[in-house]
Amino acid sequence: MTVRAGIVVTGTEVLTGRITDRNGPWVAEQLFALGVDVAHIIVCGDRPEDLAAELRFLADEGVSLIVTTGGLGPTADDLTVATVAEFTGRELHLDEPLRDHIAEIIRRWQGRGGSESASAATAAGIDKQAMVPEGAQSIPPTGTAPGVAVPAGEDPRGRRRLPAILVLPGPPRELQLMWPDAITAPPIDQAIVGHPDMRQNTIRMFGLPEADLAAGLRAAHDAVPGYDDLEITTCLRRGELEIVTRYPVSASGDYTALSNFLVGMYPSQTFSTDGATIDDQLAELLTGRHIATAESCTGGMVAARLTDRAGSSAYVLGGVVSYSNDVKINSLGVPASLIDELGAVSEPVAAAMAEGVMARLGADTAISTTGIAGPGGETPGKPVGTVCFGIGVPGAPTITRTLHLPGDRAAVRERSTTIAFHLLADALRAAAS
Amino acid sequence: MTVRAGIVVTGTEVLTGRITDRNGPWVAEQLFALGVDVAHIIVCGDRPEDLAAELRFLADEGVSLIVTTGGLGPTADDLTVATVAEFTGRELHLDEPLRDHIAEIIRRWQGRGGSESASAATAAGIDKQAMVPEGAQSIPPTGTAPGVAVPAGEDPRGRRRLPAILVLPGPPRELQLMWPDAITAPPIDQAIVGHPDMRQNTIRMFGLPEADLAAGLRAAHDAVPGYDDLEITTCLRRGELEIVTRYPVSASGDYTALSNFLVGMYPSQTFSTDGATIDDQLAELLTGRHIATAESCTGGMVAARLTDRAGSSAYVLGGVVSYSNDVKINSLGVPASLIDELGAVSEPVAAAMAEGVMARLGADTAISTTGIAGPGGETPGKPVGTVCFGIGVPGAPTITRTLHLPGDRAAVRERSTTIAFHLLADALRAAAS
Repeated sequence: MTVRAGIVVTGTEVLTGRITDRNGPWVAEQLFALGVDVAHIIVCGDRPEDLAAELRFLADEGVSLIVTTGGLGPTADDLTVATVAEFTGRELHLDEPLRDHIAEIIRRWQGRGGSESASAATAAGIDKQAMVPEGAQSIPPTGTAPGVAVPAGEDPRGRRRLPAILVLPGPPRELQLMWPDAITAPPIDQAIVGHPDMRQNTIRMFGLPEADLAAGLRAAHDAVPGYDDLEITTCLRRGELEIVTRYPVSASGDYTALSNFLVGMYPSQTFSTDGATIDDQLAELLTGRHIATAESCTGGMVAARLTDRAGSSAYVLGGVVSYSNDVKINSLGVPASLIDELGAVSEPVAAAMAEGVMARLGADTAISTTGIAGPGGETPGKPVGTVCFGIGVPGAPTITRTLHLPGDRAAVRERSTTIAFHLLADALRAAAS
Repeated sequence: MTVRAGIVVTGTEVLTGRITDRNGPWVAEQLFALGVDVAHIIVCGDRPEDLAAELRFLADEGVSLIVTTGGLGPTADDLTVATVAEFTGRELHLDEPLRDHIAEIIRRWQGRGGSESASAATAAGIDKQAMVPEGAQSIPPTGTAPGVAVPAGEDPRGRRRLPAILVLPGPPRELQLMWPDAITAPPIDQAIVGHPDMRQNTIRMFGLPEADLAAGLRAAHDAVPGYDDLEITTCLRRGELEIVTRYPVSASGDYTALSNFLVGMYPSQTFSTDGATIDDQLAELLTGRHIATAESCTGGMVAARLTDRAGSSAYVLGGVVSYSNDVKINSLGVPASLIDELGAVSEPVAAAMAEGVMARLGADTAISTTGIAGPGGETPGKPVGTVCFGIGVPGAPTITRTLHLPGDRAAVRERSTTIAFHLLADALRAAAS
């Protein structure tokens, strides 16, 4: 028996598209890892009647757990707890120790230079945040708002049993810090107990058209006996294909058969079967090396992505964003004549950029990009999306590649960054072998 | 009368948190701009029964329009059109001209080096993509999948009138290219006709605590007569506060009063009342200038964000990512003694970085960052989140600032990038005045 859950994300700023929801996907991923199936993620605004309708919908769909995020602030439009209390027919009461705890947190903040203004309003806000539905358990705040865990129980409208409801704050950092306490709170733990032991594995490929993978999966369907027990989803993202398979532990052998079949069919395109991303692999391959970047069309995105990772200072020296030709010439030593003759978007210029940054920064490894991200800038024979890459590794000539990438400016820049990572990883693997 | 809509985003990869949905927010924003209120955005997986339940929920909630995204591919798990047809009680039929059009698109792709394999499967996939529900209108493909516009009509289960349903493809680029045709298709246009003429305006502030704004809004409530006709939402993002107000055209005077009240209360924190972002403003301020960046903790993010914008090559020369101290010393001319004495995270080093990159790249404007993004790297007196900035503009001494930023590595890096933009914009405004 699969345990199903629903997630309700509240916030007008999310509903209207002004900010991207980070909580729904994050909570889904956590639940998924616990073997809980998320059936629906619903985003709603600040209207309590919409939230109530969504809670009703999810209860009617038979989920065992509803997780809500947001709407726990001190202000009048933060109505999640009141709406959940009303929905579950539970009276709200003021939890006095909780109120004192929140007041203490706010006093500490103000002591650090926060505003002292509006103290009556602040006190009213604190009282509001310390209201807990009857029979529910509060979860200690990680910002100022406590969470609430409401146990499964009778429906006051008598239709059926209501699911457990976990009410979490909206700021992603607060929510994530609260998660360990929240998911182990008895009302929530009881709701998801009995979920089956599920596994999830990911195969990642690069350079394989999606239609070819579809054909490969049809072939696997015939070749792998337990194929139908495997829940397979595929996703094309930034030029990478991700094949995620979820299965009960009892079907582990079938998954291994599928994985072997696909890797056997696409050996050169498969770059990961253990969940590692290209970023993980590149970090590993760069251990003991010193890399420098020389970027034109990606404008710093390759360096930014390399340094996203804690500890990257062990192998990232730095780089040059040579957006103008003068910087290519003066800071990287690209011969001006090369740019004049062949244009800045050319393999010899990409090679000179990589070699230049390697020499000037004292690196042993380098990657360069120069291309036309668009929308303007195309020249005869070089349409928008033309990108040249240079890869320098010690003891081998500089490698160059030219690719023609689809999409708008943002897509070309993002995909170029991913491709730079793959080309560099391939070169480092070849150098090591 | 407000016209309400619901959005259903399909895709297991979105539901399970592996990719962030870009379509829901984008479609919501478009509808919002048309004066259509989005009440619910729902994400579901590839189970047709979940999709059907969501369509039923939205119809029962009385929305006038449902927009679905995704599930239009050629493979067996792409079931949106069939589910919508079943839900609306409309037979599917093969649209032969549409089939020929899709086949032609695929032939052109294959001609450009796509795969020739699996042609029987491909033909079956094309037939599937060319199935259109009775009485619905297909919308020409912008990738390979056509959209479908199903008019509002009778509910085959007789409960009430069903809303119009607009079925769009999942790839964001395809969806966005299709939007103009989709929203003007008669079945959709008829559904949203009669929406009121709504306006939306945004005020942006920087450096104001959220609690102070809440107090300001309470004061505005008393001071602005038509306050209750204004739908105000506030959002804190990357250190910026965004105050979005939506109102019927008849309340324009009330909005002006609100805006004047808030700007009068927070004159130095308000940086935009016309919708412009700090990126827009900085692009304007940099016109005619030449900027260079020198980044340590942001690792290229400032340069990447500056060059996100088409046309930025007019004012971005480039930059140096000086992640290691050697690069700070050798490529930017930061005195080694300064780093030895004060540490790399210090205002004098930030100043030397900005001055160094300005001199070496021949720029007249520069911004530098050096900080401790964490999780490691803290030193006595310099906790994680300590970031120093340097701002160089001509004819004035280099400005430096030190800030202590909350959050994890990613948050510190992102917020540092936003702060760099604000500090630079402030300095350029001061230089111009």
